[in-house]
Amino acid sequence: MSLIVTGSIGIDTVITPTGRADEVLGGSSIYFGAAASFFTPVRIVGAVGEDFPASFLQVFKRFNIDTAGLEQRQGSKTFRWTGQYHPNMNERDTLKVELNVLAEALPPVPAAYRDSEYVFLANTHPAGQAALRSAFPRAKLVVADTMDLWIANEKPALQDLLRQVDGLVLNYEEAFQLTGKTNIVRAGEAVLVMGPKFVVIKKGEHGAFLLHEKGMAALPAYAARDVVDPTGAGDSFAGGMMGHLAATGDLSFDNLRRAMAYGTIVASFNIESFSLQRLEQITRADLDKRLAQYARMLALC
Amino acid sequence: MSLIVTGSIGIDTVITPTGRADEVLGGSSIYFGAAASFFTPVRIVGAVGEDFPASFLQVFKRFNIDTAGLEQRQGSKTFRWTGQYHPNMNERDTLKVELNVLAEALPPVPAAYRDSEYVFLANTHPAGQAALRSAFPRAKLVVADTMDLWIANEKPALQDLLRQVDGLVLNYEEAFQLTGKTNIVRAGEAVLVMGPKFVVIKKGEHGAFLLHEKGMAALPAYAARDVVDPTGAGDSFAGGMMGHLAATGDLSFDNLRRAMAYGTIVASFNIESFSLQRLEQITRADLDKRLAQYARMLALC
Repeated sequence: MSLIVTGSIGIDTVITPTGRADEVLGGSSIYFGAAASFFTPVRIVGAVGEDFPASFLQVFKRFNIDTAGLEQRQGSKTFRWTGQYHPNMNERDTLKVELNVLAEALPPVPAAYRDSEYVFLANTHPAGQAALRSAFPRAKLVVADTMDLWIANEKPALQDLLRQVDGLVLNYEEAFQLTGKTNIVRAGEAVLVMGPKFVVIKKGEHGAFLLHEKGMAALPAYAARDVVDPTGAGDSFAGGMMGHLAATGDLSFDNLRRAMAYGTIVASFNIESFSLQRLEQITRADLDKRLAQYARMLALC
Repeated sequence: MSLIVTGSIGIDTVITPTGRADEVLGGSSIYFGAAASFFTPVRIVGAVGEDFPASFLQVFKRFNIDTAGLEQRQGSKTFRWTGQYHPNMNERDTLKVELNVLAEALPPVPAAYRDSEYVFLANTHPAGQAALRSAFPRAKLVVADTMDLWIANEKPALQDLLRQVDGLVLNYEEAFQLTGKTNIVRAGEAVLVMGPKFVVIKKGEHGAFLLHEKGMAALPAYAARDVVDPTGAGDSFAGGMMGHLAATGDLSFDNLRRAMAYGTIVASFNIESFSLQRLEQITRADLDKRLAQYARMLALC
């Protein structure tokens, strides 16, 4: 079924303890879309500038991402981000950020996209997310991501958005920041009071936690020996999760948990390289094989 | 089968964001022993001072812990610890520590205990752990805990100990401190090079990670809504784990992973109260019921 993602498309420079990548393709909807493409066709809504390299456009083709909603805006520049990871790879500093086209008007949503049923509103200003959300009147499942900046500075707009989505995905610290609760279960409960039917709290190398109307689940990360670049881990997690949900059309609690496991596995491949290099090398069969290993790691009986 | 624990017995004062407990029974071997007692008979080797309250001796009886190895030393005082937890309950400060009898000679091991097959060397000076380890020539499984203090100041003695144990249990940060590796898989691999056949890396609210000659496993914590006092979480985890191993006599990788799940569940009850209050209220059936819930939380199929 039709899965659409709205979010950033960027040119990233990433510095890790073991290497660096200069001016590579990045952005939340890029990692999301590539990850989701293993499961279902993906549509993207986003804007880039006239500086966006033609070679990056090839990447959308390789992942079979529909680019009817990709606007290359004349006179604008692409979003750029430079970040450096700490030695433990779990924290990072943003060294430089140029919003460029992200600070301008939202990209238009093609009329042909109005029938999208599975919608992921990747991180951007919550008012922008709400505006994009309204472009998909037939949505069966709408999930949003957010970040500390909006929680701190745009809480009313975020609260308004939360009344219009089915699910929220956010980081551990952000869940505490949003709710004022330092216990993960209580933080999750407080998010559900704000509107969503479920919340997925991402804990990076510690996995992810789901609080849902029907119950809760905790999944560890796939233990990765060779982390090259954690950039996009959360977005590729969300992409795998939403991709599986859209492909199966099953929104039950059990299938959501399984979808999180797929997200975990795609993210574990994603962090094995800079940008999308690793995801470009693998197939759905590689995901299924690692999922089986992961399931055995967890099985108690 | 016979499970023995050597470690501290203390009088704790614990301050948490929501309450405090003054001069309650604590210590690594107390939490370990109480947790393990749900699975198998437990022997304890440890020393207390003449100030040790008679009421605390009743607790050993309630958990059916064999106290032939418990020495009440005349002229000595019991180990005392005062700690305060941060608002997030994940970190704590030691406000006061009085080693007292822990700084004196090791307690003697009763001759009747020499046939012990399952041995847990709870945290103390690694030279002391090595001396106690030698008292159990028929041991089938010896597992040690350690802490940052010994890693920093007694590394040669700790390395000597690691050549004499089958397994090591330690905290996440300690694993990095011991090995210099910031990736959990690589840290685990580096521990195995030091001697043990397996290492269990405890991550508190994020669960536990196992690296074993035969494979690896990651288990999330049981998501706890009501954490009263995290003291003893790691020791009760180890107690549940070793208790299940001793009760089943099965040292396979799969059973070790299941033992870790039991440890996770006992620890989840332990943190619901100060001292041993919660563990005193529950039965093995309560553990099995929560384990079934936990297994469902993890099941992917």
